[in-house]
This record gives sequence, C-alpha cells and structure tokens, in this order.
Amino acid sequence: MRRPADRGVSRRGFLMGGAAAGVGAVGGMSLSLLTDPHASGPAPADAPPPTPPTAATPEGRRRVAFHGRHQPGITTPPQAAITYVALDLDETTDRAALRQLLQLLSDDAERLMRGEPALADLEPELAAPEASLTVTFGFGPELVRRVAGDSAVPGWLRPLPRFAIDRLEPGWSGGDLLLQVGSDDSLTLAHAVRVLLRDSRAFARPRWTQHGFRRPPTTGMIGTRNHFGQVDGTSNPVPGTADFDAAVWTHDGPGWLADGTSLVLRRIRMDMDGWDKTDRHSREQSVGRSLATGAPLTGATEIDDPDLDAVGPTGFPVIHDLAHVRSARVNAAERRIFRRAYNYAEGPDSSSPGQLFASYQADVDRQFVPIQERLSAADLLNQWTTPVGSGVYALPGGCRPGSYVGEPLFATGV
Amino acid sequence: MRRPADRGVSRRGFLMGGAAAGVGAVGGMSLSLLTDPHASGPAPADAPPPTPPTAATPEGRRRVAFHGRHQPGITTPPQAAITYVALDLDETTDRAALRQLLQLLSDDAERLMRGEPALADLEPELAAPEASLTVTFGFGPELVRRVAGDSAVPGWLRPLPRFAIDRLEPGWSGGDLLLQVGSDDSLTLAHAVRVLLRDSRAFARPRWTQHGFRRPPTTGMIGTRNHFGQVDGTSNPVPGTADFDAAVWTHDGPGWLADGTSLVLRRIRMDMDGWDKTDRHSREQSVGRSLATGAPLTGATEIDDPDLDAVGPTGFPVIHDLAHVRSARVNAAERRIFRRAYNYAEGPDSSSPGQLFASYQADVDRQFVPIQERLSAADLLNQWTTPVGSGVYALPGGCRPGSYVGEPLFATGV
Repeated sequence: MRRPADRGVSRRGFLMGGAAAGVGAVGGMSLSLLTDPHASGPAPADAPPPTPPTAATPEGRRRVAFHGRHQPGITTPPQAAITYVALDLDETTDRAALRQLLQLLSDDAERLMRGEPALADLEPELAAPEASLTVTFGFGPELVRRVAGDSAVPGWLRPLPRFAIDRLEPGWSGGDLLLQVGSDDSLTLAHAVRVLLRDSRAFARPRWTQHGFRRPPTTGMIGTRNHFGQVDGTSNPVPGTADFDAAVWTHDGPGWLADGTSLVLRRIRMDMDGWDKTDRHSREQSVGRSLATGAPLTGATEIDDPDLDAVGPTGFPVIHDLAHVRSARVNAAERRIFRRAYNYAEGPDSSSPGQLFASYQADVDRQFVPIQERLSAADLLNQWTTPVGSGVYALPGGCRPGSYVGEPLFATGV
Repeated sequence: MRRPADRGVSRRGFLMGGAAAGVGAVGGMSLSLLTDPHASGPAPADAPPPTPPTAATPEGRRRVAFHGRHQPGITTPPQAAITYVALDLDETTDRAALRQLLQLLSDDAERLMRGEPALADLEPELAAPEASLTVTFGFGPELVRRVAGDSAVPGWLRPLPRFAIDRLEPGWSGGDLLLQVGSDDSLTLAHAVRVLLRDSRAFARPRWTQHGFRRPPTTGMIGTRNHFGQVDGTSNPVPGTADFDAAVWTHDGPGWLADGTSLVLRRIRMDMDGWDKTDRHSREQSVGRSLATGAPLTGATEIDDPDLDAVGPTGFPVIHDLAHVRSARVNAAERRIFRRAYNYAEGPDSSSPGQLFASYQADVDRQFVPIQERLSAADLLNQWTTPVGSGVYALPGGCRPGSYVGEPLFATGV
C-alpha cells in the first residue's frame, strides 16, 4: 500500500529543492515555495495575539491562521471532529530528513488551513471548505533526540509514570511525531490527514489513529458533555489571560520550545454499563457536580466555585472526600492544566466508548503528574474509567511565514 | 457486558405492561405510554406529506417528525453523521417478543427525535439537542419470517446475487434488524444508538456497526463529494415528485410494506493509493464527469444531462463506453434508485477509506440489481472500488401516534 518510491522522491525533490544532491536541479524552488506572501494577517512570532484569529469568509467558512506565535489548535475553540495520528520514525530518518519532513508538513498545513490544496494535492477538490481546520504538531523524545541530541529533551518528555488505574495498550500509546488535526467538516479533516500521511510516507509509519467528536457548548455553558452526561471542562484556564499564559506556554525552557507547550493525550475507556447501573445521586457524588447543569453540589450555576469545606445537615461534606472535582482541584494558576477533550465511540457494538483526554501545560511533571497522582489514588470516577492509551508530546511554538514548525530545534545542540 | 437480566426485565415490564404474564401488575400502562398526545404535527398515516417536516426550534435545533406516512431518514436531507447497526435476533425472540421490541424501539425513536430522553433513559442529559436526529428501521428476511411466515417475505428480500467485483466479508453483511440513525451532532447520535442497543439487549445482539459522515452540499451543488473528490449523488430522484414516489415507495406489495421501501447498503472500500496514481484525465474519463464541478463531460454544469451519444473530434465518444455515468444510467423513472451515501474512514492509518453506499427503491430485483449487474461488468471505477459488505432490508412505512413501525406486519400471515 506504500506509494512507489519514485513518486515519493519526486514529490520531495520538487518541494524541497533537494536537501541532499539535487539542489541545482530545481533552481530557485526552496523556501519561497513554502510560504504564501499573500497569506492573510498572520502575526509575526514576536507580536502576541494569544489566539490565532478566526475569520469568517463570505460563504460562512471559518478559517484559523496557521502562522503565529503559538501553534493553532490549542486555544482554537474546539472543532466538531478531531483526528490524532502518532507516527514512528523510520530508522533512516535523520536530522536532515526531519527538517524536510517538518518543512513539507508545515507547508501542507498552511495551505490546507486556508482551504487550498496542498502542493501536488491529489484530491484538490476536497480542500475547501477549510471549516476551521487546524493542524498541530507534537514531538516525542526520539524526534527531539535525533535532531538535537539528548540534552534538548525536556525532563518531562517521556512516558508518564505508571498509575495504578492504568491498563495501557502499546497500540494506543507513544509515538515520535504527533499530528492533531481538527475541523468542523469530517471530509475536510479526512483529506487533510491523508495529505499529511502521504507526505510522511518516506519518513515515518503511522503507529495509531484516534478519532474524536465533540458537541459545541450549549448556549451559556462553558463545558461540553461526555458520554456519562457530565459537563466536562468547566474549570479551565481562559485563553488570553495571564493565568492561561502561566499555565500553558513554556517558560522554563528548553529554549527551542519557547511559545510552545506540552500535550498529554490519554485514551480513557468509559464503562457505560457500570455507569448505567449507578443511580443519579451516586453519580453526582462521584463527580461533585450536578449532571443537569454542571454546577458544583455547593452551588447553583456552572461557574460557581466548588465550596470544598461546606458541610451538609448530617455533618458530612457536601462534596464527597473522593469526588472528582475535589481531587482534580488546583489552586495555583501556574499548576493548572488546560483541557480540550473529545469523545470517541468505536468498537463493534459502541458499548465501549470513551474520552480522548487532552491537556496542555507548560510542564508535565509539575502540572499534570501531581493531579493524575491524586486522581489515581482518590477519585470515585475511577470506578468507571480506565486509561488504555497514553502519550506525552512537546508542541513547539508557532512559526512565521518562511519558517516551519520546529525550526528552533534545528538551531539547538548536536 | 450484558446488563443483568433483572434490569432488562424490569425495563421491559415497565414499558410494555407485560405482554405475557404481567399485565395486571402495571395497570393502565400500556400503549398510552408509548405515544405523546402532544407530539407536534405528525401527519396521520393517510395524509401525505412526502417529506417529514423539519422545524427549527428557537435555539436553532432542527427536528424531524417521527410519525408520518413514511419513515424518517429516507427523504430527510442527509445529516452530517450516520450510524448503521445490524442486529441478529436471539433464538428465543419470537413473534410476541418482536412486537415488544418494535414498540419499545419506536417509542425510543419518537422521544429521542423530539430531543427528549427515552423512557428510563440513563443519560437523559444527552438527548438534547436532537440536531435533526432520525431513526429508521429495516427488517431482514428472518425477522419478517418469524413474525408472519415465509409468504410475507418479498422476493427481493435476500442477499444480493454475487457480483464479480464483490469481496464480501460476513462481518459487514446481513443482519435481521437494521437501525439507521443519523444526526448533525455525533454525541446525540451516539446516545441514541446506545439507548436503542440497550433496549434491544434482551432480544438481539449487534452484528456490526458502521459509522459514516457526509459534507453538506456546497451551495448550488446537488451531490456531495466522496473521498475520490467526485461529486456523487447528482442524478437522483427528487423527493416529493411523482417520479420519486414511483421509484422509491412500495407499490407491488407485500401489503405490510405499504408506504415502505427497501434499503441496499453496501460497504465499498476505495483504493486511494491506486486513485492517487491516476491522472486527472483518466479519473474524469472513468466517472464521465468533471471532478471540479460534477458536470458531465458533455456539459457545463452539474445538472446538465450527460449526452451519451456525443462524439469528440477524434471520433471517439466523449463519455467513455465504460464510464460510470453511462453504466449507471437509468432512463425509466420507476427503475431508478434513490441514493443517500456516506463516507467512512476507519482503520489504523486511514488508508482504506470508503463509502457506505445506501440506495432506496421499491423493488431491489427490478431496480438495484440490473444497475449493479451493468456496473459490475462495465465500470471503470471498479478498478479502485471493492464492495466488502452488503445488506438488503425491507423498510416498513411510517407509523401514526399510538402505533409502531412494522405494526402492519403483525396483521399478516401466520
């Protein structure tokens, strides 16, 4: 099923100007091909628009800018559908090849996010509407190592510690290069994923693919519902605030990860049959929130802060000692995580659905791990949830026109 | 993973008023529970609105009526997402049990399509918005036989003849009861499927589940694009016309299928790698239409009729002798089929996407089979498409309040 080598090579040679031997052959084609001087309003890397601007085109198509200080797809309002793909690098994919790969994929992403075909796109009809398409790149430790050596790998860029609740399957975990592709149109999304995978074939093989979907928030609701009916994602840092910046964007290095972040992606199976056997009171005790409104059990509306000290008429805490909302609670802004979860529903009888939990944070070890340790030890929701996949990725900052995602890594080490 | 029997029984007993022994125990609960006297504006079974009315609620939610002359989900404008589930009946599911099952599922469908929880819905929070939810029921031959005997089974209700191009897998074929569930919201859809499967557990087991998605037609375009980039579904009977009625709704019996139709569902794998190697000219020759606009190669716009006799400057037909548009052509209105196809993209590397081809017609043998025979023998597109799943189902007419889908079958035979 692999494309014949000659096609892969000619496509690479055409776009790249031949990083190895073929520079002369393609003359002036090089980075100038990789960017569009007419791209609308990308922010230069040193001017901060915290959220990539979204503009509605005349047909109601929505567009997210590829270029900017940060990568798109993090603060972008979550689209209806998402595909995550993890790739394993081929043995022969060295530093030079990785630069080619990231140039190629960045170029694809930039064009596709404008609703235009990739270079030599073989199904150009599928590129529009872009429907809020975003492409976000994440690096596993092996990719970073091959480009810039061990010293460039941040300490937290490794598999998470093993939690007692984990039942991880290698087929849903890890990977050297992560693609996160989201859109409100599933065909646009499928086409974008296909283009990116096609252009990766000479460098890497897909390790796993995960599809997710998400309901837009109900009017007036911050979170979004998961398969349990819970309102999820209410207590989340708000993009554009100082607290968000402190929690999400890299601040303690490494330097190549400036304006970047990390992604923890966990595939969490949800035991719907078990949940179905649980009465409403027990469910709300487990979460610590009303199922109907998402309000904490001590409050009236979704945005009320949970009062963890409140005691009921019988002398017991209103919010259970082991309630999810208690164990997940983080007070210090810089220790919080930014969640952007999706639902999945796969399998022959749809009886094992779940959540693609995704969180972004500056430092996995300081932010995600302590929360997960608490949740692993004390969270009533664990009765019905089982992590079966897990990955940690470094997400570089965004790129400016003429550059590509991950370029600063190539100026590092080795 | 099956729910304990006591819960299944109590749920059935509660809703059904106990078809066997328990009638007295639940008193007045019987069919009156199964319908809502305040249901908005369903057409009585003898007053024809050819398309179930769609109404936008204040929040922009869209609602399709469950009750009506025909089942919803056939002439309903295709939603963004669809799930087909085929069930195999348990050995012990007899005529009485099937009536219970169809009453139960019809009640679920009616409530869910109004954006309301099913009776004893265990995740009631997920029922709204309905987002154009439709639930459509199809019967395989075994279900019809168990209810009304061999004589009630229409001649065409059997596996299709084996076509030379077929590479069918049992895991994607057949089934006794088909659920077709569509919505513009994937979480609403997942919840509805789960409710229907939960309420089927005491009667049947899922045989397969297939998920599809579809891009709304571009402004001014009739068809919708598939993974090949083709505009698909252009030449389709138009709901509400006499030609549509002649092609789609049952007219030669059996009587229990009045106002019904048939569904042929084919899972067709698309060889994207092969398609990618094919130049644009060859692709357009294979289809007989422009990839960009969907216009026939003899026309300028999508709606132009193909001129199959047109000859080019070199003396060859403009539309190739083996072009898809030529072999698929049907002139007699009553021999046409009504297509409502979806795309799928599954598998670990998204490299084997395809189409869930769905066609509705009054008589499979007179309408679908001759077209498929021609296509199997002579269609350039066969180079890149492989049917891997196949099913034929009888879709009864719609039901009126107080009744359920398939009720006329229980007045037939035996």
